[in-house]
Amino acid sequence: MLEDKNQEKTSLEKLGEFGLIDHLTQHFKIQHKSTIKGIGDDAAVLDFKDKKTLVSTDLLIEGIHFDLSYMPLKHLGYKAVMVNLSDVYAMNARATQITVSVAVSNRFPLEALEEFYSGITLACELYKIDLVGGDTTSSTTGMIISITAIGEAVEEDIVYRSGAKPNDLLVVSGDLGAAYMGLQVLKREKEVFKVNPNNQPDLSAYSYIIERQLKPEARKDVVELLGKLNIKPTSMIDISDGLSSEILHLCKQGEVGCNLFEDKIPLDPTVISACEEFKLDSTLVALSGGEDYELLFTIDQKKFPDLKGNPNFTVVGHITDKHEGAHLISRNNSKIPLTAQGWNSFAKA
Amino acid sequence: MLEDKNQEKTSLEKLGEFGLIDHLTQHFKIQHKSTIKGIGDDAAVLDFKDKKTLVSTDLLIEGIHFDLSYMPLKHLGYKAVMVNLSDVYAMNARATQITVSVAVSNRFPLEALEEFYSGITLACELYKIDLVGGDTTSSTTGMIISITAIGEAVEEDIVYRSGAKPNDLLVVSGDLGAAYMGLQVLKREKEVFKVNPNNQPDLSAYSYIIERQLKPEARKDVVELLGKLNIKPTSMIDISDGLSSEILHLCKQGEVGCNLFEDKIPLDPTVISACEEFKLDSTLVALSGGEDYELLFTIDQKKFPDLKGNPNFTVVGHITDKHEGAHLISRNNSKIPLTAQGWNSFAKA
Repeated sequence: MLEDKNQEKTSLEKLGEFGLIDHLTQHFKIQHKSTIKGIGDDAAVLDFKDKKTLVSTDLLIEGIHFDLSYMPLKHLGYKAVMVNLSDVYAMNARATQITVSVAVSNRFPLEALEEFYSGITLACELYKIDLVGGDTTSSTTGMIISITAIGEAVEEDIVYRSGAKPNDLLVVSGDLGAAYMGLQVLKREKEVFKVNPNNQPDLSAYSYIIERQLKPEARKDVVELLGKLNIKPTSMIDISDGLSSEILHLCKQGEVGCNLFEDKIPLDPTVISACEEFKLDSTLVALSGGEDYELLFTIDQKKFPDLKGNPNFTVVGHITDKHEGAHLISRNNSKIPLTAQGWNSFAKA
Repeated sequence: MLEDKNQEKTSLEKLGEFGLIDHLTQHFKIQHKSTIKGIGDDAAVLDFKDKKTLVSTDLLIEGIHFDLSYMPLKHLGYKAVMVNLSDVYAMNARATQITVSVAVSNRFPLEALEEFYSGITLACELYKIDLVGGDTTSSTTGMIISITAIGEAVEEDIVYRSGAKPNDLLVVSGDLGAAYMGLQVLKREKEVFKVNPNNQPDLSAYSYIIERQLKPEARKDVVELLGKLNIKPTSMIDISDGLSSEILHLCKQGEVGCNLFEDKIPLDPTVISACEEFKLDSTLVALSGGEDYELLFTIDQKKFPDLKGNPNFTVVGHITDKHEGAHLISRNNSKIPLTAQGWNSFAKA
């Protein structure tokens, strides 16, 4: 699946560990003044002067976090970077550098790793990120990716998960549930492919949701937009595990409750139609689906006029006192307690 | 092997991802003023003011980098931290924070992960390091560890791999080859154990070399000592892959050659006797063994009086012009080109 079988493959063993990392990272250009020394020494050296440094890290395992049978390696590289940048943006900060470590079995050809790094290169170019470290090593079985993202911010701009106050508005960027529905389509096509490998499916009707799964974008633009609108959220988190789980994080850390209105949850029309096709409840998909990498934040009510009508944002609810708890207000006006149906990786294996 | 089979085990699934990381990290105390926000948000927030930030990362895979059949989990946690701190010290910098991500199968009991984290805790306490992030997730097969170390230094103190000049002295801290010989003893005992599980071997004669393998120490003390002696090396690297490979890094990046004197290579007497027992050449073991985590550096000849006679340091050679190449001067005075026999993880799998 990775490559046309007739192409020549280069074994990783031939290059060795040092040759490999040199080869894969030779085209990365340093874009930030804060990057004093990138790849090639024991550690990277960064200079943030009077700014604060932000650090976020993720470990992605084949078979748990991604499936190479429907995830092209270039997309995987791109997405792995997005997942990490998203955490830095969720602090209302600027992502500046990443380190990338990857382990693959030595049966993986060099060309496959090059594909993976081409996705990383593209992400770094588009998001203005310097690759400053990492390593490549072998794994006994599947592919393993570890990425650490580093960012900067002046102290007064940083937004934590804690900080939401009663009566604050609960806001999300973009729309939700698409990445999860894209995954359902890809999983179904994988089963179809097993039965009939010559089948050429027409997936054009699903292009939006598949792209949201395979090539998500971290919302750097949202952080920049909030800056332009002069809005500093009172709390913020990125939506990686599903809206429900993220709201509960904000409520727990802010020691507050909330009301989330079902009819306000932003859904793309293609998500609604895919949910009908797969006989899934679209609200549940938005609440528990995950991998949307949108931003969820709270703002003071006074700031509402500043983002009202902006197509990037949807007010989905408001913060309450802690003792009122966290609830979904359904379309028929019943009050349902929110539960963390976010992704528990240990329950899946 | 991990635990007494009669003990109660707690399944990871019960705790879930968020409960698990809370549980494992609850006893970590913040020790640095530079740690503004540690675990518990999208990213850690660090404040290095006018200092430079250093970042180093490592990915450790079961079956490639460690073997749980002779590596107790507590030692593994400790060693994983050391491997990363060593990279920061090799820049002549101060290590301040780490992030730790770990993936295990859900058949791993909580108690085993607690053991692993107790080693991380001990390392953090002894080396004054704040744990500021990371995650736990499941793996489909073995254990995977990803650690990122962060440090700080004022710019003029930072020592790179490049910088060695002809006539500089080549110096190593401590002694070499012990970690590799400790591994040989442990591998032999593993084979003996397979044949006779009731065998209780007396390993006291090997305690030094086994400890060097299972519980290496990163040379924070050497960096502090160099500071006290007012010695700033011209280049430096940590010895993770074997002396030969590391010398070649310094020569390549400094665009210089070198002469390494075989009779100067510091070997502990127990390494020499273990080499005799295993019929291995002790020079080859020091050159290619790896995992010693000592520091290799170059200094201006004028600085020689400042470290002369110091038991922590051994002058093993000197830097030459690039065109002279990198050579080992053997005991019988023959000149042998140094080759990178450092560990190539892709050739082993």
